[in-house]
Amino acid sequence: MKNFSYYTPTRVVFGKGAELQTGELIKAQGAKKALIHYGGGSVKRTGLLERICQSLDDAGVEYVLLGGVVPNPRMSKVYEGIELCRREGVDFLLPVGGGSVIDSAKAIGYGLCYDGDVWDFYAKKAVPKACAPIGAVLTLSAAGSEMSDSSVLTNEEGWLKRGCNSDLCRCRFAVMNPELTYTLPPYQTACGATDILMHTMERYFTREPDTSLTDALAEGLMRTVIESARTALRDPQNYDARAQIMWAGSLSHNGLTGCGTVGDWASHQLEHELGGMFDVAHGAGLAAIWGSWARYVYKEDPARFAQFAVNVLGCKNDFADPRRTALRGIEAMEDFYRSIGMPTNLRELGVEPTEEQFRELAYKCSFQNTRTIGSFKVLNIDDIEAIYRMAK
Amino acid sequence: MKNFSYYTPTRVVFGKGAELQTGELIKAQGAKKALIHYGGGSVKRTGLLERICQSLDDAGVEYVLLGGVVPNPRMSKVYEGIELCRREGVDFLLPVGGGSVIDSAKAIGYGLCYDGDVWDFYAKKAVPKACAPIGAVLTLSAAGSEMSDSSVLTNEEGWLKRGCNSDLCRCRFAVMNPELTYTLPPYQTACGATDILMHTMERYFTREPDTSLTDALAEGLMRTVIESARTALRDPQNYDARAQIMWAGSLSHNGLTGCGTVGDWASHQLEHELGGMFDVAHGAGLAAIWGSWARYVYKEDPARFAQFAVNVLGCKNDFADPRRTALRGIEAMEDFYRSIGMPTNLRELGVEPTEEQFRELAYKCSFQNTRTIGSFKVLNIDDIEAIYRMAK
Repeated sequence: MKNFSYYTPTRVVFGKGAELQTGELIKAQGAKKALIHYGGGSVKRTGLLERICQSLDDAGVEYVLLGGVVPNPRMSKVYEGIELCRREGVDFLLPVGGGSVIDSAKAIGYGLCYDGDVWDFYAKKAVPKACAPIGAVLTLSAAGSEMSDSSVLTNEEGWLKRGCNSDLCRCRFAVMNPELTYTLPPYQTACGATDILMHTMERYFTREPDTSLTDALAEGLMRTVIESARTALRDPQNYDARAQIMWAGSLSHNGLTGCGTVGDWASHQLEHELGGMFDVAHGAGLAAIWGSWARYVYKEDPARFAQFAVNVLGCKNDFADPRRTALRGIEAMEDFYRSIGMPTNLRELGVEPTEEQFRELAYKCSFQNTRTIGSFKVLNIDDIEAIYRMAK
Repeated sequence: MKNFSYYTPTRVVFGKGAELQTGELIKAQGAKKALIHYGGGSVKRTGLLERICQSLDDAGVEYVLLGGVVPNPRMSKVYEGIELCRREGVDFLLPVGGGSVIDSAKAIGYGLCYDGDVWDFYAKKAVPKACAPIGAVLTLSAAGSEMSDSSVLTNEEGWLKRGCNSDLCRCRFAVMNPELTYTLPPYQTACGATDILMHTMERYFTREPDTSLTDALAEGLMRTVIESARTALRDPQNYDARAQIMWAGSLSHNGLTGCGTVGDWASHQLEHELGGMFDVAHGAGLAAIWGSWARYVYKEDPARFAQFAVNVLGCKNDFADPRRTALRGIEAMEDFYRSIGMPTNLRELGVEPTEEQFRELAYKCSFQNTRTIGSFKVLNIDDIEAIYRMAK
């Protein structure tokens, strides 16, 4: 078990009608004027935006609106937000949406406390020293940005997608009403559940021994998400299934499921390049690549994959050979992905890279053959290309 | 699943040598002068106090010392602390110890921000509006005060033991080095593990349906504590067992294991009066009363106790009758308590109340027959007396 630090200062307000507390929560932060930041028209159509505005009115908190955040959120919107906030004297950021909207707000928050170009933090040219206060109203269970320290932005100049991690951007509060996710299309629900599972699995597949409490928490979380995703897809307005998924989404990425482990994160890196080259949903891309990654690496520590198979997926343990149990678990996970409409290879993802594209994916993912990825098994450019090809 | 709020702002610094960061952690809070608050001589004997002082010296943080906190910490020490801090211009409280020391520091923290008598908050005559900043160095895995919102103090005037709960007193940081618990006597290790389990069980035994994620986390935590307590008693210097128990102690009482449930807390109320009338260790008192409470209430929802039996204690499920499975679980839990040297009735606890004392315990526990306790089954004065007698 590695030494670790754990810091999750976000005040979670969870349950039916939680969004009605938004105004009071901002007021309690001593803020006077908020930027309500959102994506497309769904928050208007559902009446959520109106309820939020009413809540701020009731609390005497002023606000300005900025919509139009897109999936894989872009720097142009961030710059627009920074300018708007400065002009309007905004002192609090209120993203209403999922990970993209929250990540965009985090970048605006950094930018408001910085004289230079906020992209510096994402390009690793500078380290953030402060961030304007943020509170989130969550409408999508997936990225876990509402409690995490991370944000990922895309710069249209060169179409670079880069992340920035800092405790400074952790939300002051997160308002989570599972009912707000009832209207999600099934594909988005499934992508979200996959993202949540993968945030946990990336931390779970570790070579670090003696992490039994973290293991037990992670396994319980994964079992719950698997069961609840099936329920939510069958019965989209099942409050309890939506609630388990939403709370799991926060806990899967706030640090809890990684205390004392060494994360792997290779699947995320592999998906990252797929997302850059082809227009695929993050969760679906992760599902498409995971099985190939797993089969490529499991022999490094078959017992770990066997534990996953038995404790998460309920597979029968083959006591004579943990490798057989491990493979059963990988198959069972792929069965689950297929059962919720997720792809388990690139073809099912709708992507058929050419020979040259396979090489390019590996070249980019290894940062022009200058880095390795993963820690469960350290992967070089050749390993990376082999996994992409296995996933065909 | 009930609506809930969850707020755990404490920065956890966990692992070997963590105490060496104490000075820098205080400095990062902008504090200039700390009160180092502790109990008996063990922190001196082990050299811990010296290492902490050195760490503060290195960080340029001044400090004054105040030892002598006793188990069931007392208001006289709190008043002494408040006076000392005011005289010395202390702006940060650093308890070094377990729950008693941390709770004492929390009361000092409230007192420093209040013109009246700090006991007002414990006597429910006033509600705290502020608390001086606190950071804890934990030396005992049990009470979970390092991440909780609670403190319990005893006022020698009338020997009243009262609690005060407020997010204001949550520690800014908690330094947790499991090695610091190597030297605990076996009885204290076992009492601590029991306290941790009971903090989880009080939240777990709920009539609220559909709390599957919280259930899974709680069950995993309890399984881990049960296994690790056995290991730690057999092998006191087993780092990993000590680490699981220490981290579980924080998570069991920071709110995580109760998200969406309605806690019961009857066992704590029953133990509270035992502790008031007889001089018993909190954990041992809880173990002594729990089995009787469980047998008295389980028929209200045998399925819940059956789930506990199977998922926590690995009992065989009797599919035909959940009541039989439930009873197996209660027996298995008592077997576990005995295996770590904990009592499972009052005689084993070393307490033999007279007929009159049984009536007095129930009278006091029901606040002179003016309140009920518990929620899994609501217990009146007659129920309470019956449970005390069952525990004979």
